[in-house]
Amino acid sequence: MRILLIGYGTMNQIVARLAEDAGHEVIGVISSSTDAYPVYQHIDDAKADVAIDFSNPERLIPLISEDFKTPIVVATTGKKEEIVELLKARSQTAPVFFSSNMSYGVHVLNKLLKNALEQLQDYDLELIERHHNKKVDAPSGTLVKLLDTALEERTDSYPVYDRSKLSHARKPEEIGVSAIRGGTIVGEHDAIFAGHDEVIELKHIAQSKDIFANGAIKAAEALIKKENGYYDYNNLL
Amino acid sequence: MRILLIGYGTMNQIVARLAEDAGHEVIGVISSSTDAYPVYQHIDDAKADVAIDFSNPERLIPLISEDFKTPIVVATTGKKEEIVELLKARSQTAPVFFSSNMSYGVHVLNKLLKNALEQLQDYDLELIERHHNKKVDAPSGTLVKLLDTALEERTDSYPVYDRSKLSHARKPEEIGVSAIRGGTIVGEHDAIFAGHDEVIELKHIAQSKDIFANGAIKAAEALIKKENGYYDYNNLL
Amino acid sequence: MRILLIGYGTMNQIVARLAEDAGHEVIGVISSSTDAYPVYQHIDDAKADVAIDFSNPERLIPLISEDFKTPIVVATTGKKEEIVELLKARSQTAPVFFSSNMSYGVHVLNKLLKNALEQLQDYDLELIERHHNKKVDAPSGTLVKLLDTALEERTDSYPVYDRSKLSHARKPEEIGVSAIRGGTIVGEHDAIFAGHDEVIELKHIAQSKDIFANGAIKAAEALIKKENGYYDYNNLL
Amino acid sequence: MRILLIGYGTMNQIVARLAEDAGHEVIGVISSSTDAYPVYQHIDDAKADVAIDFSNPERLIPLISEDFKTPIVVATTGKKEEIVELLKARSQTAPVFFSSNMSYGVHVLNKLLKNALEQLQDYDLELIERHHNKKVDAPSGTLVKLLDTALEERTDSYPVYDRSKLSHARKPEEIGVSAIRGGTIVGEHDAIFAGHDEVIELKHIAQSKDIFANGAIKAAEALIKKENGYYDYNNLL
Repeated sequence: MRILLIGYGTMNQIVARLAEDAGHEVIGVISSSTDAYPVYQHIDDAKADVAIDFSNPERLIPLISEDFKTPIVVATTGKKEEIVELLKARSQTAPVFFSSNMSYGVHVLNKLLKNALEQLQDYDLELIERHHNKKVDAPSGTLVKLLDTALEERTDSYPVYDRSKLSHARKPEEIGVSAIRGGTIVGEHDAIFAGHDEVIELKHIAQSKDIFANGAIKAAEALIKKENGYYDYNNLL
Repeated sequence: MRILLIGYGTMNQIVARLAEDAGHEVIGVISSSTDAYPVYQHIDDAKADVAIDFSNPERLIPLISEDFKTPIVVATTGKKEEIVELLKARSQTAPVFFSSNMSYGVHVLNKLLKNALEQLQDYDLELIERHHNKKVDAPSGTLVKLLDTALEERTDSYPVYDRSKLSHARKPEEIGVSAIRGGTIVGEHDAIFAGHDEVIELKHIAQSKDIFANGAIKAAEALIKKENGYYDYNNLL
Repeated sequence: MRILLIGYGTMNQIVARLAEDAGHEVIGVISSSTDAYPVYQHIDDAKADVAIDFSNPERLIPLISEDFKTPIVVATTGKKEEIVELLKARSQTAPVFFSSNMSYGVHVLNKLLKNALEQLQDYDLELIERHHNKKVDAPSGTLVKLLDTALEERTDSYPVYDRSKLSHARKPEEIGVSAIRGGTIVGEHDAIFAGHDEVIELKHIAQSKDIFANGAIKAAEALIKKENGYYDYNNLL
Repeated sequence: MRILLIGYGTMNQIVARLAEDAGHEVIGVISSSTDAYPVYQHIDDAKADVAIDFSNPERLIPLISEDFKTPIVVATTGKKEEIVELLKARSQTAPVFFSSNMSYGVHVLNKLLKNALEQLQDYDLELIERHHNKKVDAPSGTLVKLLDTALEERTDSYPVYDRSKLSHARKPEEIGVSAIRGGTIVGEHDAIFAGHDEVIELKHIAQSKDIFANGAIKAAEALIKKENGYYDYNNLL
């Protein structure tokens, strides 16, 4: 594939490395901060096979406010509703892929969680994540997504973030959420189903940010074969 | 439910305790070693709502070689093929449930594993189990079942039990199987999918044999509402 | 050993079972709720080799407010300071053992934690525990003990119970504390040291309350060979 | 520190990056395969504060067969006995540090294991490691080191690599050794002590090879303050 990168921060530098390792070609970049590749202003200017975005709402929103035909994989976080709305409009003229977590493995974890929720309705659910000590938000965006999946299935449930303040036994509706922080841990997510004398655990461990770049490349490879439309992991692969 | 127990070893003593705790009634037993309950010779003699078997092939096979109408949950291990054949014949006149692992949680683990195998086709799979130091066989029957599930999906794969003898890099077709033994560990099973910079793990932890008894009771509760036929966890619940 | 039980709740019933399994004799009980064994009013009345207490402050404090000579193992929780003061007075005339967590394994975990704290001074520390859904307090008493051990070594540190309310990167002085609740989990405690690209974890998993009873019996076996004095796990074994 | 690198493969390239990040200076290299830094032939030629070696016996042995005065940190694996003998001779004129595993965290794991072995004498011990699917040897060198530590304390014990071939209950003298392989897992080592109804686990998880480079830099920082002599992690820090 001939790839246009939108943004050239840490993530898209990894995309460039892994894409080139896999035999793809980076033909340009939409970024004000690098001349590593030819710089473009609009998505269709580069005549790329696909655009891969790891940028921010400020850069992305103007770009997707105008029409284009290049298939696009979008990973920007923040202003999610506005971005999704714009992308849905653009999906009339281009295949568009969006995911708030580009890791294919995390997507699989989320599907396994959904599956488990259907089968383990009477089991207590707890969610734990671990990340490095520089992470400012807690719980992680991925955990919030897993929690959303749980709350769709368990409509009476609600998250509990701090049990040290409570003095009652756990209610079945509670979903405990814990965030561990330390060192340079890349990211772990753990869903625990606890029943009578048994526990079932589903866990995803990330070793590096490569998984997000690889997910975007994998999505791009599938997307360029698709018709115009709005895609995420549930209908792309 | 009014329950007839077939066998009265450790497992059916637990079934009796948990069933009575849950409001059911144990009305008899087919066993030569106890008079805790009225003793019967044939399955239909007790006029029970359901029979729950945790015995052995020597006791069970004669009982299921003759016709009966009482719904039956069978957990005997050993002589599996002969027992399944007899039970299928009996399923003409009674609802019959058989599982080589009565734990509902292990059944769910197996289904999640199947689901994961479909989605994680390029990921290396390894299976690990832990049990107490008195267990004679390795790997456990449950791990063998998980391995069978994996081999159905990955038809070119094969188990590897001892890497200390090998001196080559892992081949994608290998499925490593490890058995940990120690103390009084009741039972843990772990399926590890390892890909590029990420790992997905599915794990089941048993705390006591109660899970097998509870599984049998849960199956019995569902079975007595079913028509005659042969059931396992895949078509019962 | 000829054992006097103080209290006859769940824990001392387990002590009785495991002590008798190990060849010891239960010769009496100080309890108003059972006649399973001869009932005594004062510790020395039973002429036992050792007294094992799993009761409550209301029962225990009057008993240890008067003099006695029988070696005693005390596991009552609550009113810790008052009990320790009384036991120290009694240690003039009897060997006295007290621990707020009778599990020998938890004691070892605490010592390993201390050892690790000395060697891993620059590593971020996080503490996690898991217990069943009936537990009212959080974090567990054992986690509080582990935290105390950490705070003795890291005098500038402080616990953080809820990161969902914070929006800053983790500070080195923080010690994250998480409490997971679900099902019938007996008890797990986990200390995580996270540094640059590596994590060291120390973990204790309890399968049943037997570990507390066994710890008390093990302490009693050692205590009856000791001179009068005040003992805990650090100076007994 | 002004550092001379011996060898310039993957590991010493990481050393260069991390050392420079930490404010140190790489002033030269003994290598035939790079001109990234000035190239030297003998250890003392560079007038460095310290030499850090991640090379191989062919390169290292000639260099340490002649006298030198530069403090040296040696991480070459293979021909261990010959190298240690030569380094001990050189320690007359220079501070010399050698470790077959440069990770400080792994060293701490090994010390915690030793500590645990002393306290948990009746507990069954099992060792597990996980590595990537390109690793040819099993178990890992680090696991062998942990096993050696265990066998020093438990002199009657012996490793068991494959339980699928056995049909007896675990003997107390057995130490189960399991090697998991998959994906790009950097390295995990796990020591499991299993007793009656409790398990204590000690675990080290490596995220990248940075931990070996950081260990060498940390050792170098301490070594240059030391007198001539032979050092490893046990007497250096």
